[in-house]
Amino acid sequence: MSSQPPVIILVETQLAENLGSVARAMANFGLIDLRLVNPKVDINDPKAVAMAVGAVDLLRKATFFSSLSEATADLTHIFGTTAIIRQMVKQCYTPNACVSLCFQNPMWRVGLLFGPERTGLSNEDLSLCYGVVHIAVEPDFSSLNLGQALVILAYEYYLKKTSPKEQFLQIGETMPAPLEQVQYFLSNLEHKLDQTHFWRADYKKPIMWRNLRNIFTRMDLTEQEVRTLNGVLDVLSRKKEP
Amino acid sequence: MSSQPPVIILVETQLAENLGSVARAMANFGLIDLRLVNPKVDINDPKAVAMAVGAVDLLRKATFFSSLSEATADLTHIFGTTAIIRQMVKQCYTPNACVSLCFQNPMWRVGLLFGPERTGLSNEDLSLCYGVVHIAVEPDFSSLNLGQALVILAYEYYLKKTSPKEQFLQIGETMPAPLEQVQYFLSNLEHKLDQTHFWRADYKKPIMWRNLRNIFTRMDLTEQEVRTLNGVLDVLSRKKEP
Repeated sequence: MSSQPPVIILVETQLAENLGSVARAMANFGLIDLRLVNPKVDINDPKAVAMAVGAVDLLRKATFFSSLSEATADLTHIFGTTAIIRQMVKQCYTPNACVSLCFQNPMWRVGLLFGPERTGLSNEDLSLCYGVVHIAVEPDFSSLNLGQALVILAYEYYLKKTSPKEQFLQIGETMPAPLEQVQYFLSNLEHKLDQTHFWRADYKKPIMWRNLRNIFTRMDLTEQEVRTLNGVLDVLSRKKEP
Repeated sequence: MSSQPPVIILVETQLAENLGSVARAMANFGLIDLRLVNPKVDINDPKAVAMAVGAVDLLRKATFFSSLSEATADLTHIFGTTAIIRQMVKQCYTPNACVSLCFQNPMWRVGLLFGPERTGLSNEDLSLCYGVVHIAVEPDFSSLNLGQALVILAYEYYLKKTSPKEQFLQIGETMPAPLEQVQYFLSNLEHKLDQTHFWRADYKKPIMWRNLRNIFTRMDLTEQEVRTLNGVLDVLSRKKEP
């Protein structure tokens, strides 16, 4: 799976919109191989094309099969998706666990199966699966849209593949401010507050000034932002015209 | 956020289908508060209602605002969603990091913002956000459907809230087989293979038998399955009628 993205197999899909939204989500997350087992709608249906947006090519390259066995003949492991866990002896995985397992086994050629919208995968189709992927949802509103279920699995695949940074500061053309610049701003601020008798009573200053420093030191300021704040400070503290 | 799920705020939504799919995904993942800032479509539009399926009530309870400030007045932290990272000094989070942060700060009252389909959130709206949530997508197909982006965030919220088991064996009304039952089956198999001269040459038996044991010991068999396999073995090895 690290070399080959999972194949997406839709069984007896009933709504054209879902063909389109599946194709679009596949393109968003780097999946390319779409297989359709006895679809009940046409991939050229205007609703499918409209929902696919720029992924129409991916949709048009979908391949057609008359049985699940034919659609999965070249694969080594297939996982069925279900919202409801049936009474069946089957290994169940979260999307994350399923994708992790596949990346741990790069020789696997994996297929992800999605059943008809109204009924989901049949127990017969599920019995052909190596495992089941179960997306945890609210028990009293457990019917996930096909395109929504697909996008969650595609998203988990892409997360594992790309391991994006969990958090970062996006700062455009400026740079994080060195502390001496922040310190210069703080000295400037303290000086101006001293001049305007902000502290009211001298004994109050240490705590008030500590609280103010806390505000500015946790702000992740950039060099440009420190310059801007110094400018704001200078203008605000300028002597009023008489 | 652990006590209060995040509020979903849609800014100038243009397609009725998306209102419906957002409502449905919210219901799937336990989100309840939908706020609409100047929507360009009607929540009673048949396309919205059709896509909402059973979540029409949630859609009908959506509240309306004429500005982002009004829609977020009671919240403490809002996160904008963007596919493309702009040139702006902004803290960026993956969906997982954003949701983790919110759960670490249960006193926060969080809003998740989604912009108009064609343009996304304006830089002005983004500048009001505490941070930005960025869903990593293929750079050359980065336009995520609004409902798809929402479902990814809602899914991450629900994952964090419910911490489902990553993997488990679903076994219906039977129980995992104790090893003595598996061992009984293996003894039965070995005995029958001895009788039928399966090993061909005695010196080959140790390795062949070890390989066969490996197949059956990694199978996570249940009590019922061991009984079934014993039955299969007995029938297959039954003396043929003359």
